[in-house]
Amino acid sequence: MTDYTLYYWPIPFRGHFIRYVLAAAEATWDEPATDALTALKSRAPGDQPYPFMAPPLLVDHETGRSLSQMPAILMSLARAHELVVDPDRDLRLICDASDVLFEITRHHGAALWDAESWADFAATRLPRWMQVHEALVRASGAGFLDGGDEPMLGDLVLAALWHTMTDRLPPLDPLLETHAPATRALALRVAERPALAAMRAGWADRHPLYCGGRIEASLCEVLGM
Amino acid sequence: MTDYTLYYWPIPFRGHFIRYVLAAAEATWDEPATDALTALKSRAPGDQPYPFMAPPLLVDHETGRSLSQMPAILMSLARAHELVVDPDRDLRLICDASDVLFEITRHHGAALWDAESWADFAATRLPRWMQVHEALVRASGAGFLDGGDEPMLGDLVLAALWHTMTDRLPPLDPLLETHAPATRALALRVAERPALAAMRAGWADRHPLYCGGRIEASLCEVLGM
Repeated sequence: MTDYTLYYWPIPFRGHFIRYVLAAAEATWDEPATDALTALKSRAPGDQPYPFMAPPLLVDHETGRSLSQMPAILMSLARAHELVVDPDRDLRLICDASDVLFEITRHHGAALWDAESWADFAATRLPRWMQVHEALVRASGAGFLDGGDEPMLGDLVLAALWHTMTDRLPPLDPLLETHAPATRALALRVAERPALAAMRAGWADRHPLYCGGRIEASLCEVLGM
Repeated sequence: MTDYTLYYWPIPFRGHFIRYVLAAAEATWDEPATDALTALKSRAPGDQPYPFMAPPLLVDHETGRSLSQMPAILMSLARAHELVVDPDRDLRLICDASDVLFEITRHHGAALWDAESWADFAATRLPRWMQVHEALVRASGAGFLDGGDEPMLGDLVLAALWHTMTDRLPPLDPLLETHAPATRALALRVAERPALAAMRAGWADRHPLYCGGRIEASLCEVLGM
């Protein structure tokens, strides 16, 4: 019996935010196969044990409660495992991350990337997001955001965003290094913690690399991967 | 001197969620003109007093703190004003609402509505969102979500989403009545509370109606407004 069940697609993307927090909390979890998620998600809302629109969905086996929406899951998990230091800032960073994920997938593949649209994004909004986080990281001083010896929720979120992106899509790493070197270093320190490195090791050779689907294919193409 | 300053576009949309909570909390706030927001938003992140990407941005004049991202602002305000009963559910509803706003504007106007795309949305995802919330509202019993005499954060969020949408875009009201009659009734009860009715009265004859821009024009066109 695990502590939690995480229903999500077999991709990093939004899932890695939750996996980072679960791993940092030393919690155990299982991830059912995609057909179980599809079956649950496809039921009429009135027939779902927990009415929800889309994954991620986390079931807490201690309380029996289900919860959807990545930001709500992260705040709930981090509260339960005492990883929240500054809930306002932490939730703001989670929402930033969620926006970046929307943007880098052109809203879950509503459009695909081509050379022109990618060149614009990689020259404007993506570096701006990096610079915004860099300014926040620099204002917090060296070390982790909250000054302790262990990464807390804010650090985990920045790592799940920027390390996952540049680790799974390495051609983006120089852009992060240019626009957000302190954020990159922070994200790397977090990702290399033993519990998080162990979680990530399970993904090393897996595909999809990042967000899956045709949008991942178009991303890889514009990145020359 | 007001309690807060809200930087946002002069439209309902995301702003009304914050205005609902501010009004319910009987807080005072001002909203600077758009050029002040544009100037703040356009500065390099390292030069912004509070590095952020996009409005809404709320400044709390008691603490001096700024905060961006609608879900973070709502949770912070509601915590400060004792409007949070179930933070997991409340944040989940806020994130649902944020997704609905993305979807009904085709991701802030990344594409515009035409008859075909709207017919699909209005027959599939929009009613599904309504049904999901209807199932949650019905499970909570009659009255407000948390059973008290006053609307709390969860109620305010549902009203800011569904009442604002159908009040500003009345052709959508029958769809809500069909798929989520209990949610519609709850949203109306909230919106008619004196403090909230007074806030809304200031918007009665204003344009933009809902989300502004070319996407609002395309919405009005497919809705025959």
